[in-house]
Amino acid sequence: MLLQASKTADGPSVAIVGVTGAVGQEFLRVLKERDFPYSRMKLLASARSAGSMVEWDGETHTIEELTDGSFGGVDIALFSAGGSISKKFAPLAAEAGCTVVDNSSAFRMSEGVPLVIPEVNPEAMAGMRAGRGGIVANPNCSTIIALMAVTPLHRASRIKRMVVSTYQAASGAGQAAMDELELQTREALDGRPITQNIFPFQYAFNLFSHNSPMTGNGYNEEEMKMVKETRKIWGEPDIAITATCIRVPVMRAHAESINLEFEDSLSEEQALEALAAAPGVSIINDREANRFPTPLDASNRDDVYVGRVRRDISRPGNSGLDLFVCGDQIKKGAALNAVQVAELLL
Amino acid sequence: MLLQASKTADGPSVAIVGVTGAVGQEFLRVLKERDFPYSRMKLLASARSAGSMVEWDGETHTIEELTDGSFGGVDIALFSAGGSISKKFAPLAAEAGCTVVDNSSAFRMSEGVPLVIPEVNPEAMAGMRAGRGGIVANPNCSTIIALMAVTPLHRASRIKRMVVSTYQAASGAGQAAMDELELQTREALDGRPITQNIFPFQYAFNLFSHNSPMTGNGYNEEEMKMVKETRKIWGEPDIAITATCIRVPVMRAHAESINLEFEDSLSEEQALEALAAAPGVSIINDREANRFPTPLDASNRDDVYVGRVRRDISRPGNSGLDLFVCGDQIKKGAALNAVQVAELLL
Repeated sequence: MLLQASKTADGPSVAIVGVTGAVGQEFLRVLKERDFPYSRMKLLASARSAGSMVEWDGETHTIEELTDGSFGGVDIALFSAGGSISKKFAPLAAEAGCTVVDNSSAFRMSEGVPLVIPEVNPEAMAGMRAGRGGIVANPNCSTIIALMAVTPLHRASRIKRMVVSTYQAASGAGQAAMDELELQTREALDGRPITQNIFPFQYAFNLFSHNSPMTGNGYNEEEMKMVKETRKIWGEPDIAITATCIRVPVMRAHAESINLEFEDSLSEEQALEALAAAPGVSIINDREANRFPTPLDASNRDDVYVGRVRRDISRPGNSGLDLFVCGDQIKKGAALNAVQVAELLL
Repeated sequence: MLLQASKTADGPSVAIVGVTGAVGQEFLRVLKERDFPYSRMKLLASARSAGSMVEWDGETHTIEELTDGSFGGVDIALFSAGGSISKKFAPLAAEAGCTVVDNSSAFRMSEGVPLVIPEVNPEAMAGMRAGRGGIVANPNCSTIIALMAVTPLHRASRIKRMVVSTYQAASGAGQAAMDELELQTREALDGRPITQNIFPFQYAFNLFSHNSPMTGNGYNEEEMKMVKETRKIWGEPDIAITATCIRVPVMRAHAESINLEFEDSLSEEQALEALAAAPGVSIINDREANRFPTPLDASNRDDVYVGRVRRDISRPGNSGLDLFVCGDQIKKGAALNAVQVAELLL
C-alpha cells in the first residue's frame, strides 16, 4: 500500500519544527499514513540542518532554519524540538495566527493550554481551529499510553488510585539514545569498552531509573508528569497516583504495569468489555497461550495494546485490577497523537 | 584474592545436584568464596554429563550420575536441577540422612518444610543439622530479592499491602535462556532471523509477561510464588500482595518496583535507617546525582541493592512508600541463599 498525504490547494499550510529528530521524522510518516490534507509543507530545524533535502510525498523539500519569521501564513505547526525551542517559538507562531501542536512539556501544565489525547478529552480543545493561533499540548508519552487503556476503565467505574511502574524504551530520549543502545549492545557482546554519551550508565543489557531530573519529593520529572498530566486530562485534581519510571533496553515502545483501585468496583469482564469498545486500544490477553502484549507487538503500530487484565487479589472483591500495557513511544506516544490533535483542528 | 573452600576432615560431606546448570556452577563459586568447610564434594548431574571433569578448589572432580544411591554418607545436598528431580530425589536423600537445601519450587509450600532466607527467618529451620535428614526450601528468586529489602521495613512498621512489578533477568530461565538472549541480540543487530528455542517471543530488545504457567486467577505461577512464599516466610497468611512479573533483556540480576502500604506509617528517614542496618542490603539512593540501583550494580554481588526510597504521594502522610530493588538472580536469588542456609546447618 502506497500511503500518500493529500496535497490540496484548500488544505492547511503545515510546518514541522524539529523535522530531523525521531519524532519529527515520524510526523512525516504519520501525515502520509493518515492522508493528512495540506497545501504547503514547511520543514523547520536548526541552522545545522537547514539546506538539507528531504524526499516526502513525491516531492523534494528543503529544510529551512527555524526563525522568528518562520510562521507567517502557516496554519498548523507540529513542534518536537525540545522544551526550550517550544518556549521561544510556539508563542511567536501562535501570535502569527498559527495553531501549534506542541510535543514538548513546555506548555502542558499552562492554564488555558489544552492537554489532549483525542480519544480521551477532545472537548478540551473545543473552538480551536487551524490558522486561528493558540497552543495545544501533547501529553507525555507514558501518560498517553497509560490513559489510552485506563480512561475507558475510569469511565466504566471511577478510579481512585493508580500505581504504575514503567518499562520505557530508548526512543523517549531521542534517536541518539536508540543509537547508543545499539552501539553499546554491540560493544557489550564483543567485550569492548562501553561508549557512554547519552546516559551515565551502561544501557545495554541493563535498566535504570528514568534519567529525567529529580524533583523535591524524590519522584523524577517523568513520574510527576504522569501524576499531574493525568489529573489535568481527566479534570480530576485529586486522583491519587504513584509512578516509578524505569528505562529498559528496548528500542521504541513503552510498557507499563498498572494497578488500579476503584472507588466502587469493576470486574475483569466489565474491564475487557470497556477496553474492547475503546478506540485505539487492542487487547492481547490470551491466558491459555500465555500471550500478552510486548513492546515489539506495539512497535510501529498505532494502537495501544492491553493485556494481563485481572482482578487484583490483594484487594477486596472487584475493587482492584492489574493490567499491562504497551504502546509505541514515537507514534501514539508522540507523533500520532499530535497529528490526531491536528486533525481535530481542521 | 584467591578464594578457596576449606577441605577439612571434620567438615560435612557435600553433594551438588545439577552441577552443570547456571545455579549449580554458582554453588561451586559461592562455596569457594565463603570458605565453606567440606570433607568430600560430590558433583551430581544427569547421565548425559556424568564422567565430565570439573576443576574446583585445586582438585579435579568427576561428575557422577544422579541415582537413588547417590546420597549414602552425604551430609548436605544442594539441589538445583528442577522441580521433578527434586520431587524424586530430595526425599530419598533426606531418608538417607542427608539434609537437603532445595532450590526448586517442589517443596516450598509443603507443610513441615522450612522456607528460609537466612537474614529473614533463620528460626524456621531451628533444630535442623547437616547429616540429620530433612529438607529446607530456598525461596523463589524474586521473593528473596524483594523480602531482603522489604522485611526490615515490615519489622519497623507492619506492611499491610504490597504491589510489585518485576524486571526479571534471563538467568531465571537458566543458562540456555541467557545464551538465547545473547544469540538473538546478535541476530537482531545483524538483521538476521531470530532463533527462538526457549521463549516463544523475540527476547532481544523486547520484554514479556513471565513465561511461567498461568494459574486460574490470571496470575502466573511466578507471581503467585511471590504472594504465597512471602506469606509463609513472614508467617502472615493474610498479607495482601499483588505482583506483575515481567522478563526483561538483562542477563543475571532482577529488578523490582515495590509499592508498600503500612498499617500505620514509616517515613523515608525511618525506612533508610532500617535498610542501612539490614544485613545483606546496600543502599544506592543518590537523588542529586540521579543514581540508583541497576541490575549491573547487583550482578555478581552478594547484596541486594535498594534505592528510589520515597514517600508514596498517592497515600496519606507516611502510610505508603515506593522503592526499587536489584539483586543478582543466580547469587542471592539462588546459590548464595542456599549456601547461607547450608551454613546454618553446620
